[in-house]
Amino acid sequence: MATSKKTIKPEVLGGFKDMLPREALILQKIVDTVKIVYQSFGFLPLETPTMESLDVLTGGEETEKSIFVARILRGAEDKGVADAEWADNFALRFDLTVSLARVIAAYPDLPKPFKRYQLGRVFRGEKPQAGRFREFFQLDFDTIGADTINADIETIVVMYECLKALGINNFTVRFNTRKVLNGLAEVVGLQSKAKELLRIIDKLDKIKEAGVKAELMRQPDNEFDESALAMSETDAERILGFLRIKNDDPQQILAQLDEYFAGNNGECLEGVAELRNITKTLDALAIPRRNWKIDLSVARGLDYYTGPVFEAVLDDMPEIGSVFAGGRYDGLTNRFMPDSNIAGVGASIGVDRLIVAMQKLGLIEAKESLTEVLVTIFDPKFEGESMALAAELRQAGFTTELYLGNDRTMRAQFAYAAKKGILFAVIIGETESRDGVVALKDLTMRQQVVLTKDALFARLKEMKS
Amino acid sequence: MATSKKTIKPEVLGGFKDMLPREALILQKIVDTVKIVYQSFGFLPLETPTMESLDVLTGGEETEKSIFVARILRGAEDKGVADAEWADNFALRFDLTVSLARVIAAYPDLPKPFKRYQLGRVFRGEKPQAGRFREFFQLDFDTIGADTINADIETIVVMYECLKALGINNFTVRFNTRKVLNGLAEVVGLQSKAKELLRIIDKLDKIKEAGVKAELMRQPDNEFDESALAMSETDAERILGFLRIKNDDPQQILAQLDEYFAGNNGECLEGVAELRNITKTLDALAIPRRNWKIDLSVARGLDYYTGPVFEAVLDDMPEIGSVFAGGRYDGLTNRFMPDSNIAGVGASIGVDRLIVAMQKLGLIEAKESLTEVLVTIFDPKFEGESMALAAELRQAGFTTELYLGNDRTMRAQFAYAAKKGILFAVIIGETESRDGVVALKDLTMRQQVVLTKDALFARLKEMKS
Repeated sequence: MATSKKTIKPEVLGGFKDMLPREALILQKIVDTVKIVYQSFGFLPLETPTMESLDVLTGGEETEKSIFVARILRGAEDKGVADAEWADNFALRFDLTVSLARVIAAYPDLPKPFKRYQLGRVFRGEKPQAGRFREFFQLDFDTIGADTINADIETIVVMYECLKALGINNFTVRFNTRKVLNGLAEVVGLQSKAKELLRIIDKLDKIKEAGVKAELMRQPDNEFDESALAMSETDAERILGFLRIKNDDPQQILAQLDEYFAGNNGECLEGVAELRNITKTLDALAIPRRNWKIDLSVARGLDYYTGPVFEAVLDDMPEIGSVFAGGRYDGLTNRFMPDSNIAGVGASIGVDRLIVAMQKLGLIEAKESLTEVLVTIFDPKFEGESMALAAELRQAGFTTELYLGNDRTMRAQFAYAAKKGILFAVIIGETESRDGVVALKDLTMRQQVVLTKDALFARLKEMKS
Repeated sequence: MATSKKTIKPEVLGGFKDMLPREALILQKIVDTVKIVYQSFGFLPLETPTMESLDVLTGGEETEKSIFVARILRGAEDKGVADAEWADNFALRFDLTVSLARVIAAYPDLPKPFKRYQLGRVFRGEKPQAGRFREFFQLDFDTIGADTINADIETIVVMYECLKALGINNFTVRFNTRKVLNGLAEVVGLQSKAKELLRIIDKLDKIKEAGVKAELMRQPDNEFDESALAMSETDAERILGFLRIKNDDPQQILAQLDEYFAGNNGECLEGVAELRNITKTLDALAIPRRNWKIDLSVARGLDYYTGPVFEAVLDDMPEIGSVFAGGRYDGLTNRFMPDSNIAGVGASIGVDRLIVAMQKLGLIEAKESLTEVLVTIFDPKFEGESMALAAELRQAGFTTELYLGNDRTMRAQFAYAAKKGILFAVIIGETESRDGVVALKDLTMRQQVVLTKDALFARLKEMKS
């Protein structure tokens, strides 16, 4: 191949990353484990395009998000495409939920409830930061068209089962409901500013009680400052009183909520009933209380949630935030079908974050390779026999590599095995070929034995178990 | 949630598509099967970003391809990003091979040979046509840093094993080598126009011998027409003579090639030696001759191939073209590392095409669901028991759905099961709850029996096997 005139730097774009095999194997392990759990509950795979029209993604409204939009760079081969096609009609998805809503609207015959999971890459045009990328994986599961609280409970149970299946024991699924939070806005007479109130409450972990109080009481900076709540100290204290309702025992929290909301009739009562229902059922299903709790500070930033909200945190690594989160978002299809108010509830696992966390916590083993046996090439004369043996080993269920490197010395072949963490090498030389046997080298113990093929398979099976 | 002011049509963009669960399950089945084969040969997963810089993708040169390029639509939340970042710096990959070459150049410490596989979505900004999309899957495997012909042979063997593992028996891996084709250009003294010659030969299936001959002899349209070969009739006939070398017996083809190239010393002799070597080894490995053949018309359009090229076609559906194809492309990293000439060989499976073909040929079963048992909700009073039973069924290895629909009539629940092809429903009512038993309904046979839980598990296990 002719050398290009220009030498290109082999770099990824800022905010993007490669996953070399070591990390990609961990990704695969996590995804496979989670998929099995999703499927066991009846969730089915769905694939949607990476790009949607900008209107589909934004609902035709102004957005706060930084979205990647694409156009086509016209190649020399292409002539027949209408000019409009080259414009910025293509927008890269920033999550998988909007596309799910589009699918629900586009295929009204899909049986409901529609339970789907989806693994996909999503894109955000934000400024790249340490640990925050412009492209990352989401692995969602959602139940569409189910009003029942059982669907919310199932969502929590699926989150629990996934984390257990991943070998994580120290985690807590914290949950709350938007209805209680909306009810809270009613208590202080700020229904119309519920969203702003939630945004401030959501910062509790970062800015602490004093910070929250200050923000609640903040006066407008100017006449256009609509985000200031300008709460009285009494009201702000009343909100803080709510945030102080904390207890590992959900029954205690429920009792305190009954007391706090006594005399109110709004959404808050529905919300408390939801929390009570979830609590009762999780107990009945014997989901250990150490793995879940009611946490009234959970709000989840996205404004589309309408009912219960959940997030799972790793107890040994709370600083990384939630690794799995979601909630109920009834009405997401309304942008496509006004007033359809179709019910939706689901959660999304933060795969990239989990990869980092599970490695740090030693919960997953990083491997350089899956290869169990390296079949070496001792002498080109016996190459054919080596290839045939490799095929037989694969047939017998061993992940087997034939050595294909350019440096054919045995030293290079063993060095390759060592780098890739391969434990066994098989050698066929003149003697072995003549006697119909093979040499098996245990690369850890540095021992070599000569065996018949049958004995080789038996020995490898034994070593593996 | 407030209804958006604007109603958006729930449509995918032209050239893009959804895969509903029925099709996504087939995709998953194919991908999982192929991955297992790739892994058994020591290929490891790799993940690279969906977007690369345009220079990385094109090598900094003019391209004939229509590439999607992206920019960021600045969201209200983003202020801190430098202006340059909003430009068209982002290009969506059109294949996975260029990113692989970048990875090889970027991480020189990766052990060689580097054997990786990758599943990814790729993008082409071409005019959408029936069955031709702007976004589609590729599932590649490649061996980088192996000069040996064994790597080419292994590539053919992996293709064979994948198709067999997918349950396909009637397929042919046709192979050839660029060296023979380059040698052919030498024979007619057109080394400098080898690429154009290949492009014409590649059309044989479509335009037949007469068309090929006409194109070979075509005179330039004007003084700038560099693509015309203006071959003499004798030379054109000599090329056609080559194309007529066809035989199901590779030994016959090799003998005819020896004769055809007698007296030449160029690349063609290396090429014939390659074909002979591959033939000998495939025979030695007992890969049935019905599944492979030397086919001198195989050229593969991409100009980066340098040695053997392969493509697999389904014998029962030749009209869809190759479903799996690749070749040797030494030197692809040169754009990043001039004169590095790193060896590469691999192939890519056309997943979307296979999904269509395997369904048409009845080689894969389409399912609406994976759910084996639907646990119904007979009466909200026994909901808790139903949920607990569903959990136990999952624990016992059955894919189990708890009914979550809004219509709680038994009729609706059975209709849901029927739509999703679920074979069994379990019911807990007043009597069952009191007696500690469950009712199992066989939805195909329309029979219902009352069983203890232990008997239920045993019965379901029996039905499953």
